[in-house]
Amino acid sequence: MSDATTGESRRIRLTLSYDGTAYAGWQRQKNAVSVQQTVEEAIHKVTAQFSAVTGASRTDAGVHAMGQAAHFDTISTIPPEKFPFALNPLLPPDIRVLSGCEAPVDFHARFCAQAKRYLYHIHNAPHASAIHRRTEMHVPIPLHIEPMRKAASALIGVHDFSAFCASGGSYKTPVREIYSIRIARNNAHIILSVYGNAFLYRMVRIITGTLIAVGQAKLPVSCFEHALQTGNRLLLGATAPAHGLCLEQVEYDPSFIQTEPDTSEHTRPYG
Amino acid sequence: MSDATTGESRRIRLTLSYDGTAYAGWQRQKNAVSVQQTVEEAIHKVTAQFSAVTGASRTDAGVHAMGQAAHFDTISTIPPEKFPFALNPLLPPDIRVLSGCEAPVDFHARFCAQAKRYLYHIHNAPHASAIHRRTEMHVPIPLHIEPMRKAASALIGVHDFSAFCASGGSYKTPVREIYSIRIARNNAHIILSVYGNAFLYRMVRIITGTLIAVGQAKLPVSCFEHALQTGNRLLLGATAPAHGLCLEQVEYDPSFIQTEPDTSEHTRPYG
Repeated sequence: MSDATTGESRRIRLTLSYDGTAYAGWQRQKNAVSVQQTVEEAIHKVTAQFSAVTGASRTDAGVHAMGQAAHFDTISTIPPEKFPFALNPLLPPDIRVLSGCEAPVDFHARFCAQAKRYLYHIHNAPHASAIHRRTEMHVPIPLHIEPMRKAASALIGVHDFSAFCASGGSYKTPVREIYSIRIARNNAHIILSVYGNAFLYRMVRIITGTLIAVGQAKLPVSCFEHALQTGNRLLLGATAPAHGLCLEQVEYDPSFIQTEPDTSEHTRPYG
Repeated sequence: MSDATTGESRRIRLTLSYDGTAYAGWQRQKNAVSVQQTVEEAIHKVTAQFSAVTGASRTDAGVHAMGQAAHFDTISTIPPEKFPFALNPLLPPDIRVLSGCEAPVDFHARFCAQAKRYLYHIHNAPHASAIHRRTEMHVPIPLHIEPMRKAASALIGVHDFSAFCASGGSYKTPVREIYSIRIARNNAHIILSVYGNAFLYRMVRIITGTLIAVGQAKLPVSCFEHALQTGNRLLLGATAPAHGLCLEQVEYDPSFIQTEPDTSEHTRPYG
């Protein structure tokens, strides 16, 4: 499919959802299929033009997304809100474009992001879940939620999170702000919701792995406080596996929206 | 793995969960892999003896289960509650045995079942779900819940459900009792919960397909009443696809439990 163009480049913002199981993460890789490459190829087919797609979060291999944000530039005249309908038939069913809108040319999906919310799903029962095995970490040992909540409260606010970064990340500063951490249990399912302005490499998975250790009394409730004070990664728990993590939402300043994105239909009930 | 036996046969009841995506249904097939066969092969490896496994519900190809019940006879002396731990390492990750207990020899998973609950999951949004695509039917047209609830209320009670049976089923009587139908919406996710004493072949999927048509005003709210009165399948909607359906629970008279099944751990929160 190709379409007429005016020759003028526009910046399009997309909201995407994907099941990360089959992908080597968001970021384009030399020898493995990434979400970014798959989306770029679909845009190429729709616009007959190559556009680099920039994601808000470079999610790791196996990590899922309900609301990844991304942008690309195109001279295509396809109305922005029609991109989901044009792209989805060309994408595999484990990647869906949920909405499209036009963005100002100074909008950047990664650098303009003001907040992100990640969810971590735990299946806390003697046996793993057959149905949700791709999206929930199985923890057979019983978890006690209250110590986890107490420990997590130490992370709220602006901190130097040096102890919470896996090697391989590079940042100007290790200072981040966590707005909230909520831990909810529904029978065997536990959901950790971590909401902050930005996160270091594998930070949410290190927080989760540590909270799981606290919930089993393998680490003290005070471990986050000590790690924040000392910057010592060794005071924290193991990095929780990728498949339990899901990028839920990315937030921007409302001024970046020229056309209101069509998110109401997938986040709020119909009729 | 084999074990000592006393030579005495015992009846074991299991609770199973499975992702039906990869299976040709519960029932053993000549040229396709079924859940029944896969479980029988694992039991064979554990007990060194072939045991036929009988399920409460012969779920169709692609249908899932959170709480399928089944029984088999064995001379193995493995404690019944240990069967999940013995079987799960030998089963593929899309089938999990959740609990095991000893049952009286007159217990029969299918014939003794007193009630079953099925859930049907709908994703009601413009675009399909990437993450839940295996377990949710995508309905892009907005559904109106209130007409669906009104229509469903006609099904509650004891009725001749002849109009609600796909060809291929054989029954002594088409009379069934539906105890309740609940329709809950959480944003784009709609869950239909159908609870009754037993169901005809594809009955829940015909009810669901009809409710979807009612929710789009393609069929009148009175269609269930007319179908019950006339026995006419043509007054109802299409059969909803298999992948949205999940067998949630099977209920038995408590007298059939010799050893209390170990279901508390996976249905109730730990600690």
